[in-house]
Amino acid sequence: MSTSAPPSNRFERRRAATRQALVRAARQILAESGDAGVSIQAIAERADVGFGSFYNHFESKTELFDAAVTDALDEYGEAVDQLLHGIDDPAELVATGLRLSIKMAESHPEIMEILRHRGLGQLHSDRGLAPRALRDLERGAASGRFALPDVAVALSALGGSLMALLELRFARPDIDGDKAAENMAEMALRMLGVPFDEAGKVARRPLPDLD
Amino acid sequence: MSTSAPPSNRFERRRAATRQALVRAARQILAESGDAGVSIQAIAERADVGFGSFYNHFESKTELFDAAVTDALDEYGEAVDQLLHGIDDPAELVATGLRLSIKMAESHPEIMEILRHRGLGQLHSDRGLAPRALRDLERGAASGRFALPDVAVALSALGGSLMALLELRFARPDIDGDKAAENMAEMALRMLGVPFDEAGKVARRPLPDLD
Repeated sequence: MSTSAPPSNRFERRRAATRQALVRAARQILAESGDAGVSIQAIAERADVGFGSFYNHFESKTELFDAAVTDALDEYGEAVDQLLHGIDDPAELVATGLRLSIKMAESHPEIMEILRHRGLGQLHSDRGLAPRALRDLERGAASGRFALPDVAVALSALGGSLMALLELRFARPDIDGDKAAENMAEMALRMLGVPFDEAGKVARRPLPDLD
Repeated sequence: MSTSAPPSNRFERRRAATRQALVRAARQILAESGDAGVSIQAIAERADVGFGSFYNHFESKTELFDAAVTDALDEYGEAVDQLLHGIDDPAELVATGLRLSIKMAESHPEIMEILRHRGLGQLHSDRGLAPRALRDLERGAASGRFALPDVAVALSALGGSLMALLELRFARPDIDGDKAAENMAEMALRMLGVPFDEAGKVARRPLPDLD
């Protein structure tokens, strides 16, 4: 969950806890069904808060679900940041970020199901992996590690490829997700202008420990 | 719309017309809102058929919306087939298919909005662009035009990139869609193992006439 300064008194702590319970319930619903066709009553029951509390925090279901997506994206971004800590090469950052994201389908299924259902609209968001990938693309383009006809389109292609692989990973649990992610990372690096031999090697470097 | 043998008598013709009206209404709803949160009553009204007719054709909303997605995918596949007629190089087929799909956001907005909302789950479907792209990937891999670590993952990457570009095209009407699609096509060909210079050229060949 995203964190901010802790609330200062009991009233504010309760208020924050109620909001967080609603966001948590909305995250679960998004991960399960991917749609917002549920009633506010059902969300409040799931969050174990009174129906009336809902409108103290959100004006509409849409606002709550948007907050839930943001919350999941923030947690995703922070998790990836921790895992990529210490890697400096933009090519390895892109390849490893992609491979770790597929591994997170197992270790963080709720976040990744939310991404599966809602991620396509978030590929240029300022939350989650997008701003981190954009920074790596720009750094790689500046240093000559990448050769990009268009950074925004490259970000779309990377994000779309990740979304598609995530969909494949969830829809076809029989395939070897790690192997598929290595192959996807290799193709992604080629796409970014990394020479083919080098792309194959960087995409198969040892991963940081997910635990 | 997909076509089959024409119905043989008046009763069957009316029956087919009712089904088609329901599918058409479902396509409009999918394109507008992307979700199935509408009532069967509202769908029947939109299709201008009686509420009771619905269950003569579909067991559930899900079944109708699936039929609507299939119908749109078939129309998409047939349109692309006609446009790509006469092109033989797998690399040019992939690049041109991608660029034409982005152009179709303007010429065929309903189909492309449906794809935007529902396409991610259809990347390995046997309808629409997927089976055609798979055929081109396999032909290109066999002839050496492509070098693919994994055909299924390559299909995911291509489809995901197209979905992401379509999302960008609809969400940001200010960007130059044709230019973005050329750049995406160039990166897609690199990804498939086409040498970088060649990828840049093939991605910018003149397009067939869309009209």
